[in-house]
Amino acid sequence: MKHFIRAGFCSGDAGFGSRMWTTTLAQCTLQTMLKRSNSVLACHTLRAGGRPGWPVARSSSTSLRTNWMQLREHGTQATARLPFTPLWTSTAVKQVRSLEQERLLEVEWEDAGQSLYPYTWLRDNCQCPVCTLQSAQARSLQLSQLDIHTGVDQIQFTDNKVSIVWPDQHTSEFDPEWLKKRCFSSAARQALQEELFLNERVYWGSELQIPTASFEEVLRDDKAALAWLLALRRTGIVCLKGAPVEQGQVTRLSQRIGYLRLTFYGHTWQVQDKPQANNVAYTSGKLSLHTDYPALHYPPGVQFLHCLSQANEGGDSEVVDGFHMAERLRREDPEAFRTLTSLRVDFTDTGADYCDFMVQSKNHIIDVDSDGQVVRINYNNATRDSVLDLPLHQVQPFYCSLHAYVQLMMRPENIVTYKMEPGDLVTFDNWRLLHGRKSYLSHPDQVRHLEGAYLDWDEVMSRLRILRKSVHGESKNQQAP
Amino acid sequence: MKHFIRAGFCSGDAGFGSRMWTTTLAQCTLQTMLKRSNSVLACHTLRAGGRPGWPVARSSSTSLRTNWMQLREHGTQATARLPFTPLWTSTAVKQVRSLEQERLLEVEWEDAGQSLYPYTWLRDNCQCPVCTLQSAQARSLQLSQLDIHTGVDQIQFTDNKVSIVWPDQHTSEFDPEWLKKRCFSSAARQALQEELFLNERVYWGSELQIPTASFEEVLRDDKAALAWLLALRRTGIVCLKGAPVEQGQVTRLSQRIGYLRLTFYGHTWQVQDKPQANNVAYTSGKLSLHTDYPALHYPPGVQFLHCLSQANEGGDSEVVDGFHMAERLRREDPEAFRTLTSLRVDFTDTGADYCDFMVQSKNHIIDVDSDGQVVRINYNNATRDSVLDLPLHQVQPFYCSLHAYVQLMMRPENIVTYKMEPGDLVTFDNWRLLHGRKSYLSHPDQVRHLEGAYLDWDEVMSRLRILRKSVHGESKNQQAP
Repeated sequence: MKHFIRAGFCSGDAGFGSRMWTTTLAQCTLQTMLKRSNSVLACHTLRAGGRPGWPVARSSSTSLRTNWMQLREHGTQATARLPFTPLWTSTAVKQVRSLEQERLLEVEWEDAGQSLYPYTWLRDNCQCPVCTLQSAQARSLQLSQLDIHTGVDQIQFTDNKVSIVWPDQHTSEFDPEWLKKRCFSSAARQALQEELFLNERVYWGSELQIPTASFEEVLRDDKAALAWLLALRRTGIVCLKGAPVEQGQVTRLSQRIGYLRLTFYGHTWQVQDKPQANNVAYTSGKLSLHTDYPALHYPPGVQFLHCLSQANEGGDSEVVDGFHMAERLRREDPEAFRTLTSLRVDFTDTGADYCDFMVQSKNHIIDVDSDGQVVRINYNNATRDSVLDLPLHQVQPFYCSLHAYVQLMMRPENIVTYKMEPGDLVTFDNWRLLHGRKSYLSHPDQVRHLEGAYLDWDEVMSRLRILRKSVHGESKNQQAP
Repeated sequence: MKHFIRAGFCSGDAGFGSRMWTTTLAQCTLQTMLKRSNSVLACHTLRAGGRPGWPVARSSSTSLRTNWMQLREHGTQATARLPFTPLWTSTAVKQVRSLEQERLLEVEWEDAGQSLYPYTWLRDNCQCPVCTLQSAQARSLQLSQLDIHTGVDQIQFTDNKVSIVWPDQHTSEFDPEWLKKRCFSSAARQALQEELFLNERVYWGSELQIPTASFEEVLRDDKAALAWLLALRRTGIVCLKGAPVEQGQVTRLSQRIGYLRLTFYGHTWQVQDKPQANNVAYTSGKLSLHTDYPALHYPPGVQFLHCLSQANEGGDSEVVDGFHMAERLRREDPEAFRTLTSLRVDFTDTGADYCDFMVQSKNHIIDVDSDGQVVRINYNNATRDSVLDLPLHQVQPFYCSLHAYVQLMMRPENIVTYKMEPGDLVTFDNWRLLHGRKSYLSHPDQVRHLEGAYLDWDEVMSRLRILRKSVHGESKNQQAP
């Protein structure tokens, strides 16, 4: 049985019959979870497809009940049942013609619709060995060599290639599928961007059962690794179970991706109650909900936390979906949202660990991109600087806005509470989730100990694309078989 | 003799008699260089102070003349002659009083003026051991514990401390200098921000003589290292001379800072003519002006390039000041500037090196911050993707805008050309400079070989702050002696 998000794209000039693939993780939780409000995909058309919905379990700070949901049983690992579906139905070309006046190539597709391609773009992206360094898949043609007002001498479609002879008699050839994928229609671009960046998110509250997978299986099996990363991207958190209870596992896992991100706290770092702690995390105290390292201008995208030893009393973990909360804030208190997305806040971190450091940054508490999409939360109350670069009249509005956001996060219906056990290795989106910890009793004979590491999303997404290609035989430059 | 940029701050409520310190590098070149157009500092008041101006030398692609300017002789290394000058003249308190209605503390200074501090901010930044984890210099007080509408019970100034008793009888004490530094006046904030981030830049064209310093001295001597980093920040490029002609020197230099940034091309990378090159840099071909790695969403901030062996024919390096060119584009072609700062362009990089990778990013060619300041250039024509996520009608304007920017960069008056010699280690701002290379003849008996490495600005700025503190005895939390 196959499950799709059918995006219902109907593009007059592209003729896409687009389908977006997804995981059952998303499907099964969609009843209770919110989608990004201005999603490019018509996600409301998604049906649960007869799979069991996730049990909704309220987490409680007193019950310490851990909410886990095995990927294996409930879907995202079942990638074999979800073969990759191409974003187009047919790349058969009916005819090509040149629109001289507009300097556009028009490709009419057999299935329906047309695509238009500017001459300049076509010349810029000539795939011949002179214009492209094949071994690097990179452009050799320099911009200064590009005639941005070029015409064409000849356009034809033969041997399943669109062939263009330029005025200087240079010839370019393009595969129809390569062209169709790069169609400039809004629907085609949105579909391709989603394929490249997977920006769709599933929002959640306390009902979330944190997806789980087997640590060893993720290391060993590409399908399991792909399912892990897809869920990490989409839900923002996955707990890997059964990691050996010894240091070094976050490093092993980062090598599964590529490499970890070194920071002033070292390649990996030991979360323990330490004398003369150089970070509030290295105490036994409560940690309020935060993202890690907003004192860097580019905080780590992904965090790994591996439990080696847990406290008997306390030390429960808390997470909240910062994107979900930001969208709620946008609806409930638009002025606070505007304040937290427009004012830059100073963060600071001074001390010594891997080496000595005096770090300063300015970050928005809520980062939005140029389309207004929430893309990153930067908030750690411990490292928020006493230096506050705001005019006096904006100080109190800033505190009120931050207070509103924090209050929202702290509502019980938004927080997932769980207690890690030795061997649990939690992986989460540090740009999206805020995480915290309850205080714990530190016993000399059972020292609570987590080992942590950071990665960046570019590296994680790179591995995700490679795994997707190896599992599904797909790449952005070729059609799925 | 001391040299200052006198910033001429006159703040009614702060009473700052502010002085900004600078290096003679900036002073000597100011006649021929442009400052950031909307600088927060009144830089036109800077006088050259009798130092010899830099000789203006037109670089030429045919003469291959290398333009170097030794830091030692001409200024930036002479930090001993430029002691740190505090941003304020006096922190003596005349009186403090509470503005109950506005919930503000007013501090009247002995020298002149007053500063106002919101109660909420004061309570938030209580420096006591309960509210602040002293060993981490981090806030322990949680935002949910903060009464953002707090009043005060009592305010007084005794023993050179501003002391506040809050309604719950918690007491906070603040040092006057700590408070004055955090004054919310526009002038005080601008001065402090410049101290923290050193965002002032000196713009240049082909007349630039690239600052130089001794590699070994930078490794050994804090003053030399500070001068190097100040010039790197301000001018964007410094060549270190006399590095041992063997691999590993970029690593040694990165350890002087802290650590380098690992990428898919490895900890360090060897720029050589390689068979089956996975990057256009690994050929003997010309490299047009570019920044490195815009295929990452956060390209490396600083680049090191160490020459181990140079080609006999060709291989000259070129650099251009991308910020300067962007500002010129803003003036000469505002529509092109608007296009390059608003449209996001796809970059891509696929291959295998440190490990396999499929990297995708979206970046503006010119990044501006929320104040409209140019903060990063992201442009590498080789990795600019054939995927172009723009509606059809924006494609040709995009090409025209990029073409305008590139044409500007390629004007001879904007390009500095130099040829590295074995032992030269060029360090430059990869967010600001575009660099290129002329093609060269590859000889098996003399293989051109550079070793490169990346760092991020946060780490470099951290070291710069630490060096400044060790050389000048200054920190942001304490007044200079």
